[in-house]
Amino acid sequence: MKVVIIGGVATGPKVAARLRRLSIDAEITVVEKGKIVSYGSCGLPLFLGNLVPKIEDLMKTSAGLIRDTQYFEDTKGINVLTQTEALAIDRQQKKVRVRNLATGEERDLDYDHLVLATGAKEVVPPIPGIQYQNVYTLHSLDDAVNIKALIKEKKIQHATIIGAGLIGIEVADAIAGPRLKVTLFESQGSVVPKLLDPDMALLVEHKMRSRGIDLRLNCPVKELTGDEDGKVNGVILENESITTGLVIVAVGVRPEVTLARQAGLTLGITGAIQVNQYMQTDDTYIYAGGDCAEQVNMLSGRQVFVPLASTANKQGRVIADNIAGRASEFPAICATSVFQAFELNVGRTGLGEPEARELGYDVITSLSTGLDAVHYYPVHGAVTIKLIAERTSGRLLGAQVCGTGEAIKRLDVLITILRFNGTVKDISNLDLSYAPPFATAIDVLIHAANTLENKQLGIVDTVNPFELLERLKKDKSIIFVDVREGDETRANPVEGSQIIVIPLGELRKRYTEIPQGSPVVTFCELGIRGYDAACFLKGVGFQDVSFLEGGMSTWGALQPALNM
Amino acid sequence: MKVVIIGGVATGPKVAARLRRLSIDAEITVVEKGKIVSYGSCGLPLFLGNLVPKIEDLMKTSAGLIRDTQYFEDTKGINVLTQTEALAIDRQQKKVRVRNLATGEERDLDYDHLVLATGAKEVVPPIPGIQYQNVYTLHSLDDAVNIKALIKEKKIQHATIIGAGLIGIEVADAIAGPRLKVTLFESQGSVVPKLLDPDMALLVEHKMRSRGIDLRLNCPVKELTGDEDGKVNGVILENESITTGLVIVAVGVRPEVTLARQAGLTLGITGAIQVNQYMQTDDTYIYAGGDCAEQVNMLSGRQVFVPLASTANKQGRVIADNIAGRASEFPAICATSVFQAFELNVGRTGLGEPEARELGYDVITSLSTGLDAVHYYPVHGAVTIKLIAERTSGRLLGAQVCGTGEAIKRLDVLITILRFNGTVKDISNLDLSYAPPFATAIDVLIHAANTLENKQLGIVDTVNPFELLERLKKDKSIIFVDVREGDETRANPVEGSQIIVIPLGELRKRYTEIPQGSPVVTFCELGIRGYDAACFLKGVGFQDVSFLEGGMSTWGALQPALNM
Repeated sequence: MKVVIIGGVATGPKVAARLRRLSIDAEITVVEKGKIVSYGSCGLPLFLGNLVPKIEDLMKTSAGLIRDTQYFEDTKGINVLTQTEALAIDRQQKKVRVRNLATGEERDLDYDHLVLATGAKEVVPPIPGIQYQNVYTLHSLDDAVNIKALIKEKKIQHATIIGAGLIGIEVADAIAGPRLKVTLFESQGSVVPKLLDPDMALLVEHKMRSRGIDLRLNCPVKELTGDEDGKVNGVILENESITTGLVIVAVGVRPEVTLARQAGLTLGITGAIQVNQYMQTDDTYIYAGGDCAEQVNMLSGRQVFVPLASTANKQGRVIADNIAGRASEFPAICATSVFQAFELNVGRTGLGEPEARELGYDVITSLSTGLDAVHYYPVHGAVTIKLIAERTSGRLLGAQVCGTGEAIKRLDVLITILRFNGTVKDISNLDLSYAPPFATAIDVLIHAANTLENKQLGIVDTVNPFELLERLKKDKSIIFVDVREGDETRANPVEGSQIIVIPLGELRKRYTEIPQGSPVVTFCELGIRGYDAACFLKGVGFQDVSFLEGGMSTWGALQPALNM
Repeated sequence: MKVVIIGGVATGPKVAARLRRLSIDAEITVVEKGKIVSYGSCGLPLFLGNLVPKIEDLMKTSAGLIRDTQYFEDTKGINVLTQTEALAIDRQQKKVRVRNLATGEERDLDYDHLVLATGAKEVVPPIPGIQYQNVYTLHSLDDAVNIKALIKEKKIQHATIIGAGLIGIEVADAIAGPRLKVTLFESQGSVVPKLLDPDMALLVEHKMRSRGIDLRLNCPVKELTGDEDGKVNGVILENESITTGLVIVAVGVRPEVTLARQAGLTLGITGAIQVNQYMQTDDTYIYAGGDCAEQVNMLSGRQVFVPLASTANKQGRVIADNIAGRASEFPAICATSVFQAFELNVGRTGLGEPEARELGYDVITSLSTGLDAVHYYPVHGAVTIKLIAERTSGRLLGAQVCGTGEAIKRLDVLITILRFNGTVKDISNLDLSYAPPFATAIDVLIHAANTLENKQLGIVDTVNPFELLERLKKDKSIIFVDVREGDETRANPVEGSQIIVIPLGELRKRYTEIPQGSPVVTFCELGIRGYDAACFLKGVGFQDVSFLEGGMSTWGALQPALNM
């Protein structure tokens, strides 16, 4: 059996390795256009940020071996052709035409099964001046090495990043520092718009600004300017221009499907290659997987394009199994995406709130903040969780997390809940791990589920900080009750004529200080005391009372708006 | 509505707090025998180990408030009676007789609903000499303060811990050091026998011994001896005696049910109070929750006693809801337990392998080791996962984890899988979070599931290190093939006449050096290369070949046995 795999990163090597385990005698050939195979492209921002010291580290296995042609030959009996471009597929004859880019030599490779693992390529927006030197996409090891060298020269004082997607933000975190000022442009109104709803994005934006990033939202770049040597030297906006010495374009990737299109294979609505559950294209003998193939979102049933190394590896395994005659299916995905930047662990899964509404769901959400470990344990951080559920059934539709604490652990549990069409009630009752280093006795995730259930049952009303921001624009009569302790309010004051400070412990005696008749919003640091306060005020007859979800931990991002 | 709650730690305060949120006018009284309420008893080992500097830290809320009587009165409108013992329940009259331990005054508290949250008490084994001074159980803040003071005096050189349950191990980690030698006695054959199967326990034992703990398994303590001042000074064993200056007894806890028993409430087979799904005892007006109440293991359907602060809090919420007229059920548990000690994160959920077999399941297991984050990310650690599944269906029955890496994150996902009666296949396909700081592209958990599936499908045979140890006792003909690289084998050599070292990359050329006819076990550092090697050797005709699950990372614990 002859198997040709086009693409030597992630899916391709995974298909090859798995297939070799299942078949000692398959002839497996991997065709890769670049010089190297199987490198950790997800680590490029880490390399820029010096968390990965040497670029070679991204090319090694965990045992320290460089994954080169020889490595695949020796350890796996797999033939890897680097610097070799696949030019065309002859589906009739089951041949792939390839060219050795070093020698120019062309030849045909016969196949019984062909695997397209051609990946994705960076989108280069049609901005005038994009061709100048020192304008990079971060898509190859060479790009990363060149950017790092440029920064190390210490000749530039300012860098521009175009696009506040996860790569743009990771890169901003990696390169911003005392010597290098970074401006980040995003054409949409919030950061990581494909990942986070605007309310959760506020937390990231707040943190980025507090670290000195000049973040420009709703701000498309009109043009780049260059000097006489052809090096970029400026960014032109609507009413402003900025001097810069480096531009990194990170506006996303699109699937690389040239070969598939030429071969007449069907592409999906996302532009990626359409595949069935076996990862087969509409040619039975041609599979596609990884960043060039389309997936299905299990919650919306829609075709989506979510390029991810973990998906690529899972699909590689499925493809190898099918080629080896072990029928195997790749299921719909939850559309999980996570990243770490600016000390925050950030992620999402399932549907975002706008998408859930657009799909016709009667949506209920909660935003909760808590600690990831017991507060007396020396290492702990905050985690904010947004849950998105179907109101009546409580079925979980999606979730987003953000925090300095172990947010991703909670996201992984939520992903598992989604996989089983679980409800918020299912979360409340999970027998999750508890010990002081790992969780609070009521884990922040359980707390998030309980908060949503409390809203669902009408026990108390809450207000999301983002909703509150909108409401404040129209309604100036809202009275805020800050129930934090004196030392907390002194350390992190919120001031304004409509703010009444009454520590929770004094509220039972002093609640008559709060005027009746106006809407009341209670808040504390994380949310729990605001919750207690709202329950109490409701109990003593306040008609329109709610507590601020996530407390100051979320509201801090919006604080300027509070100073009415 | 009058509600009396007996017990002021975990369940009791939770019932009170939740009930207050649901009902502004319930009269809520908490009766607590001790001087303080609602402290973090789980943090006592952390206090001993100086990770929590002051004992008061265990008594504060995350906002820094001491949870005393005044706190509950002021912030929640809850009446807390400390130093007050509940003497008897009059179920007919719905009264509880209580005595103020400071004044001796007795009185009756009327109730509409009574909550028993009496917790658990330490088991004191009937060892002669147990009454000597400096023999402690670690069950109260006072115990912890006294032990720490004794150690700080620097007059003792040796401490004895009786019982290698999770508290015993946490305490050993906390107090062992250059100045204080620790001997830990366990009457059973492995550490944490209620948590871990013997194979997984080996990893903990190995780590403890490498940190200098004198660990004595299968070793019951016969007697303690004391000096003329009544202070403990020795431990007497079968054939040996040991000089010691401090003894900590940590042989477990049992439910405190005196009051329930006197009141004629039904106790379950575990000795804890029997409750229905609403947490009601057989008296409709009396609820019980937390460490005094029995639970049901959702996998075995059996009554179990798994005292845990997280369960206590969840049950408190359910009890409050039911009292407030919101019917709420507490489901069966997965029997999750976790701890952190000796730099290891350790945990379990569901059924252990022996219990699963005893229940009649046709069991298949896998033991896998991998990294918790991408190897080039600067912070990463290993995680070993044991999966226990039903062979034909692949249904997950239980799981155990251990490692310096983020093991508990993976356990939480497995707990969620158990909750939905999921299979190992469900794990393989989970769209878990991936980015270099959080996981490898094929997460260690996915890898564990894939390994089990490979065994299930007969793709390759594996051997568990513990099974191997047993097999080696009978079969001396096994040939080991160490496929690690030269620098790895030099750094961490395994030597013996039956060991052939052939790096994986040379195996395709050199496999003829391995004699045919004998059983072959391949191994590497974590397991993957051993797997590739076993697939290859099987492919070229070796009949009896398997790879070592978890590789050297698990085998290290058994290495002495390999030097045959």
